[in-house]
Amino acid sequence: MTISTKVLQKTSPDAPFKVATIERRDPRADDVVIDIKAAGICHSDIHTIRNEWGEAHFPLTVGHEIAGVVAAVGENVTKFKVGDRVGVGCLVNSCGECEQCRNGQEQNCLNGNVGTYNSEDVDGTITQGGYAQKVVVNENFVCTIPDSIDFDHAAPLLCAGITTYSPLARWDVKPDQKVAIVGLGGLGHMGVQIAAAKGADVTVISRSTRKEKEALELGANRLLASGDDPDFFKNHRGEFDLILSTISAPYSLDQYLGLLKPRGIMSVVGLPPEEMGIHMNRLIGGGKVLTGNNIGGIAETQEMLDFCGEHGIGAVIEKIGVDDVDAAYDRVVKGDVKFRFVIDTSTFDA
Amino acid sequence: MTISTKVLQKTSPDAPFKVATIERRDPRADDVVIDIKAAGICHSDIHTIRNEWGEAHFPLTVGHEIAGVVAAVGENVTKFKVGDRVGVGCLVNSCGECEQCRNGQEQNCLNGNVGTYNSEDVDGTITQGGYAQKVVVNENFVCTIPDSIDFDHAAPLLCAGITTYSPLARWDVKPDQKVAIVGLGGLGHMGVQIAAAKGADVTVISRSTRKEKEALELGANRLLASGDDPDFFKNHRGEFDLILSTISAPYSLDQYLGLLKPRGIMSVVGLPPEEMGIHMNRLIGGGKVLTGNNIGGIAETQEMLDFCGEHGIGAVIEKIGVDDVDAAYDRVVKGDVKFRFVIDTSTFDA
Repeated sequence: MTISTKVLQKTSPDAPFKVATIERRDPRADDVVIDIKAAGICHSDIHTIRNEWGEAHFPLTVGHEIAGVVAAVGENVTKFKVGDRVGVGCLVNSCGECEQCRNGQEQNCLNGNVGTYNSEDVDGTITQGGYAQKVVVNENFVCTIPDSIDFDHAAPLLCAGITTYSPLARWDVKPDQKVAIVGLGGLGHMGVQIAAAKGADVTVISRSTRKEKEALELGANRLLASGDDPDFFKNHRGEFDLILSTISAPYSLDQYLGLLKPRGIMSVVGLPPEEMGIHMNRLIGGGKVLTGNNIGGIAETQEMLDFCGEHGIGAVIEKIGVDDVDAAYDRVVKGDVKFRFVIDTSTFDA
Repeated sequence: MTISTKVLQKTSPDAPFKVATIERRDPRADDVVIDIKAAGICHSDIHTIRNEWGEAHFPLTVGHEIAGVVAAVGENVTKFKVGDRVGVGCLVNSCGECEQCRNGQEQNCLNGNVGTYNSEDVDGTITQGGYAQKVVVNENFVCTIPDSIDFDHAAPLLCAGITTYSPLARWDVKPDQKVAIVGLGGLGHMGVQIAAAKGADVTVISRSTRKEKEALELGANRLLASGDDPDFFKNHRGEFDLILSTISAPYSLDQYLGLLKPRGIMSVVGLPPEEMGIHMNRLIGGGKVLTGNNIGGIAETQEMLDFCGEHGIGAVIEKIGVDDVDAAYDRVVKGDVKFRFVIDTSTFDA
């Protein structure tokens, strides 16, 4: 029997959100039914549902930062029981058999993974996301939320958290290493907290000092305003072991690579759509690394949640109701949010 | 007392080489005097002495692929004795104290290392390179050449060998990994041999099949001609664990990154001078790595020489006399050499 759920839906890129009722699939033996308590708003949701990335399938519900409680489990589910506190991120399935899946890199599944929304599911339907009251997900794509993090502050970890945790873990950030987080938005504010919890010396690089107070509160050692110093890139040459760039506007790769120590690493998680320029001598000199990261695997997502639970880390949020999402989108686009909107799904019933 | 030596010298970028006699410094307590037997010709020599990279100090002798025999040692020298077979590469000094030097990364010395030629030495003179009969070098910048490699085939290892060995070692190429070597010149022909000796499945990517026979002889499993297949980049998408690019003409980074598996690595050792374009989604999708490498440290250079000795690897060379260097330069620029010119220094006395 399918599962009815209220969702926030758009019927076209320009239509406002409206509440609708859709049917989730009849849970399979390895599925978990989740009562969603909180759903974060990621900029990718906006790009997708406004059709800025093409191929949005309407009517569509987005949302891939999902936190809630297990309401039912299929007969073969072994990892979860009713009442468990759980989260779902950007992925709800993958082949499980390719070399990437076997290595815990489901986000890179060679046979095509299934995204949490706007993706073709294993049964040929289009997946519908987490701005909803219920979701049905294969247990292998569900993570446990530590008791120390409430649902509202946990939800954004499922995308913004893993997106920043994964590169910091991959490149093995160590205590006292000099880490720069470029941009202090939804991603950046998670990166600062995670890098600080790893004991790094954390610098936020922002255009102005406007967010200095927030940067320091999140655990940064300092904020450097790149726009205030015409010699910024000269004055900070060779300073950082790792730079995590979270910004989606174009910038000079050559200049940022100059801020790295020899063998330093620049990991990009923000996605400027434009082609950017780079001179190979900026990588050859000093043997520097330019890389990117796209969320993380499921086991790593659990590791991230456990790390955040242990270190008391959660997203800094503004809680909103289902009627506030259109306005929230406009504010996200303007960069006017500290630092993540989270939809209180109880407001579906208000 | 200074050491007189015959050298090949240019007095200006356009002047032909001529034989001259210069004085090397009075050997210090930690210096080694080397009778040079063979000196390789690297494209960097040409760029430097033709003033294409600016700031050439004339009269100048270049050459940083040096193989020879120890003729004398200073009183504090502990690593070498007269008669030892030794090599010198691109570096002849560094501070020894910074974090890079302490980590065996003398090529990235934070206080400025001393290049083998056209570099300001510790005494303020300009270093003169290896197209010569003798050179005086601090023992810490001298490596042992294994007995199994003759001087002619060993000399190019000191630059072309370490330049390709270092990235293959840094990124830990393993047996059966899919490694692509882009370009089959002085660097590429070393990369193929080293990757094959590490047990990798080696593909040479070249514009045409012209060098297919040589590629296979060097140990490649195959040569793919990118110019012969309009769908080359589509047909080989996601195929390689590591791409080592040795070419100095510009190419499409986006296209080459597409050839990598998820988490694959593209290491650039050839230096196109132009700014190149890249889209960040090519790095973010699959978490790929774009990096560069600039020679290697001294300990790693010794490790490379030992590896080559153990695996019977040497450069493939054309041996020339001191009168042939001008013509050889023109042939290097045209790509007409298989695969490295080596100057027989006994011809100074012919």
